[in-house]
Amino acid sequence: MAKYQSSKSSLLCIGLDPDLKRMPDNIRREQYPIFTFNKAIIEATQDLTCCYKPQIAHYAAAGAESELEMTIEFIKALGIPVLLDAKRGDVGGTATMYAAELFDRYGADAVTINPYLGLDSMEPYLDHADKGVFILCRTSNPGGGELQNLMLENGSRLFEHVAQEACTTWNYNGNVGLVVGATRPNELQRIRGIVGQTTLLLPGVGSQGADVSQMMSAGAGGGMLVSSSRSIIFASEGADFANAAREVALATRDEINQYRQAT
Amino acid sequence: MAKYQSSKSSLLCIGLDPDLKRMPDNIRREQYPIFTFNKAIIEATQDLTCCYKPQIAHYAAAGAESELEMTIEFIKALGIPVLLDAKRGDVGGTATMYAAELFDRYGADAVTINPYLGLDSMEPYLDHADKGVFILCRTSNPGGGELQNLMLENGSRLFEHVAQEACTTWNYNGNVGLVVGATRPNELQRIRGIVGQTTLLLPGVGSQGADVSQMMSAGAGGGMLVSSSRSIIFASEGADFANAAREVALATRDEINQYRQAT
Repeated sequence: MAKYQSSKSSLLCIGLDPDLKRMPDNIRREQYPIFTFNKAIIEATQDLTCCYKPQIAHYAAAGAESELEMTIEFIKALGIPVLLDAKRGDVGGTATMYAAELFDRYGADAVTINPYLGLDSMEPYLDHADKGVFILCRTSNPGGGELQNLMLENGSRLFEHVAQEACTTWNYNGNVGLVVGATRPNELQRIRGIVGQTTLLLPGVGSQGADVSQMMSAGAGGGMLVSSSRSIIFASEGADFANAAREVALATRDEINQYRQAT
Repeated sequence: MAKYQSSKSSLLCIGLDPDLKRMPDNIRREQYPIFTFNKAIIEATQDLTCCYKPQIAHYAAAGAESELEMTIEFIKALGIPVLLDAKRGDVGGTATMYAAELFDRYGADAVTINPYLGLDSMEPYLDHADKGVFILCRTSNPGGGELQNLMLENGSRLFEHVAQEACTTWNYNGNVGLVVGATRPNELQRIRGIVGQTTLLLPGVGSQGADVSQMMSAGAGGGMLVSSSRSIIFASEGADFANAAREVALATRDEINQYRQAT
């Protein structure tokens, strides 16, 4: 997982969650508005991010699979890794089809998946030893704890059990990461204590309001990718959107680095 | 949810999980091989099924979104409901995008979703009161119990907790169903005891080897959709595939009805 942070002094992962309603008119009139928008964002921020994270629903809802393909090709041509946020979860043969979608069709370097169906549902992704697989552990949404914080008979919470399995049994190829909401510093600290140096993908900075200082302190001790999407890509909805995105990305990167500890 | 079973004396839900490698050569050479294959299956089985269940990964892996759209249009023109099996699960704004993908873009009448992220992640689907929402509860795969059967502090297993919440708090629009593997009759019986008449989607008959008699006994007392995919659509991989699919679908429907209790 080191490749996400090796070439740039940045832990920032910029989420590409396009929304036609929030783009300037001249972009919306393009033949490929989503790709045009993404390309401008990427060109303005490529030196500030350790990877890009397109969220697939934002393309699927618009019937814009081809623009997702174009976006990923453009990012990869710059030598920047692509984390495709899809949160898939299904049984055997179907999971193999989803892995084919994400890794073969789209060429993702890493993906997000859901653990509810157990290890055999995750093997088609984990078997790709050269790919990063970020498993949902404790999510950033208000109701994330509804199931994830349930207390088990053995005294662990469900998300702690997931963290424990993820960094041991499920990590047979050494390619597991975990998704942990930056909005939950207490749970984040607990998870870091369980998983050692395992890389954590931390959404919640920006629009969701996570405190960067608390997050960096709680997550210290291992790999971190700090994901931010809307607060960067929609920093302005006007013609200056790319420059505005760069300004917010720069400030976010620097704020993260301010609290970064030597690792 | 009654519409799935109102017009035909069948609880069978035929899964459309196309795989180009298992289609006859003449189908593979068509401009739209997946749609051509599906159309032949649908024409041969339309009087035997209460709904069709396309599994979206099988289209996404092949870049065949347009053929999924064509398939769904064809089914709906026959007046048959479409359950789009996608097992999505994501936070707020992204869940809204997934709901737009499934309901607006594809026009699904019902979907499958994953509960791991809690109620607020499911509301964008559940808010569609006219749509069926089947929530994963106890899945049919060998490792399905790894998380789902974890014992909670309160003496319930995780899948029992999901069943309880699903038929109460989460069912505020009366449109919740549950996905329960037909391969697990003990868990199925337990779930039926919790959820009353809630409709259960039961995969596992056919290739996965569930016992129909055990399933029908364990699931009695409420709505059931019995899903079977590969054993029907790939009953033959030769030119007679559609007729072979009809024969297996007929036998499956009749076996289910043999054990069906008056409701």
